Amino acid sequence: MTPRIIKTIHEMQTESNRIQTSGKTIGFVPTMGFLHEGHLGLIRIARKQADVVVLSIYVNPTQFGPNEDLAKYPRDFEWDAKLAAQEGVDIIFYPTDEEMYPQGFVTTVRVDQLTEGLCGASRPGHFDGVTTICAKIFNVVKPNFAIFGQKDAQQALVIRQMVRDLNLDLEIVIAPIVREADGLAMSSRNVYLSPDERQDALALRQSLQLAESIIQQSERNTSVVLQKMREFIESKSTTKIDYVEIVDAESLQPIAELSGKVLIALAVFVGKTRLIDNVLIEPPS
Amino acid sequence: MTPRIIKTIHEMQTESNRIQTSGKTIGFVPTMGFLHEGHLGLIRIARKQADVVVLSIYVNPTQFGPNEDLAKYPRDFEWDAKLAAQEGVDIIFYPTDEEMYPQGFVTTVRVDQLTEGLCGASRPGHFDGVTTICAKIFNVVKPNFAIFGQKDAQQALVIRQMVRDLNLDLEIVIAPIVREADGLAMSSRNVYLSPDERQDALALRQSLQLAESIIQQSERNTSVVLQKMREFIESKSTTKIDYVEIVDAESLQPIAELSGKVLIALAVFVGKTRLIDNVLIEPPS
Repeated sequence: MTPRIIKTIHEMQTESNRIQTSGKTIGFVPTMGFLHEGHLGLIRIARKQADVVVLSIYVNPTQFGPNEDLAKYPRDFEWDAKLAAQEGVDIIFYPTDEEMYPQGFVTTVRVDQLTEGLCGASRPGHFDGVTTICAKIFNVVKPNFAIFGQKDAQQALVIRQMVRDLNLDLEIVIAPIVREADGLAMSSRNVYLSPDERQDALALRQSLQLAESIIQQSERNTSVVLQKMREFIESKSTTKIDYVEIVDAESLQPIAELSGKVLIALAVFVGKTRLIDNVLIEPPS
Repeated sequence: MTPRIIKTIHEMQTESNRIQTSGKTIGFVPTMGFLHEGHLGLIRIARKQADVVVLSIYVNPTQFGPNEDLAKYPRDFEWDAKLAAQEGVDIIFYPTDEEMYPQGFVTTVRVDQLTEGLCGASRPGHFDGVTTICAKIFNVVKPNFAIFGQKDAQQALVIRQMVRDLNLDLEIVIAPIVREADGLAMSSRNVYLSPDERQDALALRQSLQLAESIIQQSERNTSVVLQKMREFIESKSTTKIDYVEIVDAESLQPIAELSGKVLIALAVFVGKTRLIDNVLIEPPS
């Protein structure tokens, strides 16, 4: 079945109200398009759990910094629509910038604390853009639940916090990272990589595995683990570390001693392409 | 009929979902309680236009500055509930601070530009508190429309802007100022006034009337009008001007020359009590 394509807020809200009033549930997958297996995994979860699946495709300009890749961010709506149809998406919400940020737009939704470190530190204003667009789009789509990928671990926690704090009446579901056969986390930005960079990009996942094995061998000092990860990543010729951190899995605050549930997260430039990856672990005590 | 009193977000959302699914409309009057005729006017509008009327009573701490009157803000829930019953309110949403701002709350909704002048300039952070609590409470009550009083003119415009920007699916209705017989705008804070202050407080409304009559006599220079207003207010012994301004009625930007729809707004301390008032006028061109 071909998904219905909705481009205006008014039409989407009217349709969502109709669905909710009829007693059906809406599962929502917000994306920036250029769909890959990671997105399809999110859609499949929504398809299983909801009566109606809404996918949004919107490259949100306010979450890109001035020196980031907004202009060249990959887009292919026809292809995305075809994949969405194959996965049984019912509605694609596909608004324009004018629709989302009309003349005179002046409102920001900000989540503090959780946004201070990791990607929040390297990308000032990024999470304000993310939380503001998510608040908007949740009010437009009115889903019962929305699904985010664990690859963007900080984003998922920040949005969950916003939903809780603003009493948005929906559930945030966080789905596991989907990887290429060789371990590279799926990302729309992988398309930027040259063959050499594509090879070096494996260092992200491999450094996380290295960390896991060091911790398995009873290392509990985060500085030691981080140092080994850094050395490994820096041994590749096209990589440049943005950050490598070990933080508490809930508060995202850096920790000195490994205990409880922790998130090991990193952002690395491979050539000019900034990639992220992470793993959640709970070292045996 | 005695209104149902709901104290938790979960119970309120469940009830609102039930009402909306049944096809009924919700009219909402958010207040900080200590109800007066101004509030009752808002409730009557809601009662006329909606199937179900929800009144919230919550003294929101985050919209008070550190040196403001949060601790002594007047409260009388039993009396409020009695008035609400008389006016046919169906539900009173009456949450605690712990319910609205649980441990770990870190989110802010901010509206720029419209919040820069007038009360926004004198009360830093005030409107962040207002917009954040309104975003929350709208998500909890899920009204079709919410009614605010024109007395808080800037607040009404700021909230309307937030609703537009965040695509909240409700209408903001702005109701006229309700006054005492002698012209003083109704306010829960009027209870703070001593008899002398109560008399001097008439200067707010009278200075607005003075401005109207000067403009009627073809004065178009805002500085001239403002100067006469200031002199009038300062002639009273217990008054101290916080601000007196003439601004564009939509953008709230100060204007030099009177033309189009303008808002004349003022905040004046009468003794220790800060009161506000305003008038919307459109000088004949």
